[in-house]
Amino acid sequence: MSDQLSATFAALADPTRRAILARLSTGEVSVSDLAEPFDMTLPAVTKHLNVLERAGLIARGRDAQWRPCRLQAAPLKEASSWIETYRQHWEQRLDRLEAYLQELQAKEAHPQAKVKPTARKKK
Amino acid sequence: MSDQLSATFAALADPTRRAILARLSTGEVSVSDLAEPFDMTLPAVTKHLNVLERAGLIARGRDAQWRPCRLQAAPLKEASSWIETYRQHWEQRLDRLEAYLQELQAKEAHPQAKVKPTARKKK
Repeated sequence: MSDQLSATFAALADPTRRAILARLSTGEVSVSDLAEPFDMTLPAVTKHLNVLERAGLIARGRDAQWRPCRLQAAPLKEASSWIETYRQHWEQRLDRLEAYLQELQAKEAHPQAKVKPTARKKK
Repeated sequence: MSDQLSATFAALADPTRRAILARLSTGEVSVSDLAEPFDMTLPAVTKHLNVLERAGLIARGRDAQWRPCRLQAAPLKEASSWIETYRQHWEQRLDRLEAYLQELQAKEAHPQAKVKPTARKKK
């Protein structure tokens, strides 16, 4: 994966890796402490940590005995900016769904009411 | 990929798929028109579209002759919410970098000034 944005999104595309980042958001954690809640072998967790480290989302201490991992959130800024450019699209869609729901509720409250041909303007 | 968030991030982890979404953000586009700027074969583009469709990021019309693709931005809302929970982390880091830069500039402007011990305190 050559580009940073692809590496970031690929690293986030796994529930275990997202859980590791969530855990690290509270502070530094050793690899063995990280592995504990996941019911995974240490090599399996290490594999996930390697993906996160290559994407620049975590850094690992150099102490051979206790190699604490810590969150590096900088790559998430670019990922957030990319997604935010689509915000108007999902908000527009929610607005349309809400308008439709209100229309249905209005019909239910007044089933006899004629639906006004709003498109036809009175002269 | 069982969970929606993983499927969304995996779909975004490719520059061609992100470019397809960017193109669709301006409106519906046929598959052949989508393929054109990418210098890719139609099957290669179709493969990317299948990934995007499975993630719920696009929908395709049922007209066999002209199957227009359109953006479905709803899954991006959840992805954005997830990333936003880390905003304070990348902003804190940028704040610290900025503070460090200002400290360096201050030292350069007044090389004789004593550095207060509090400024050197490690977080």
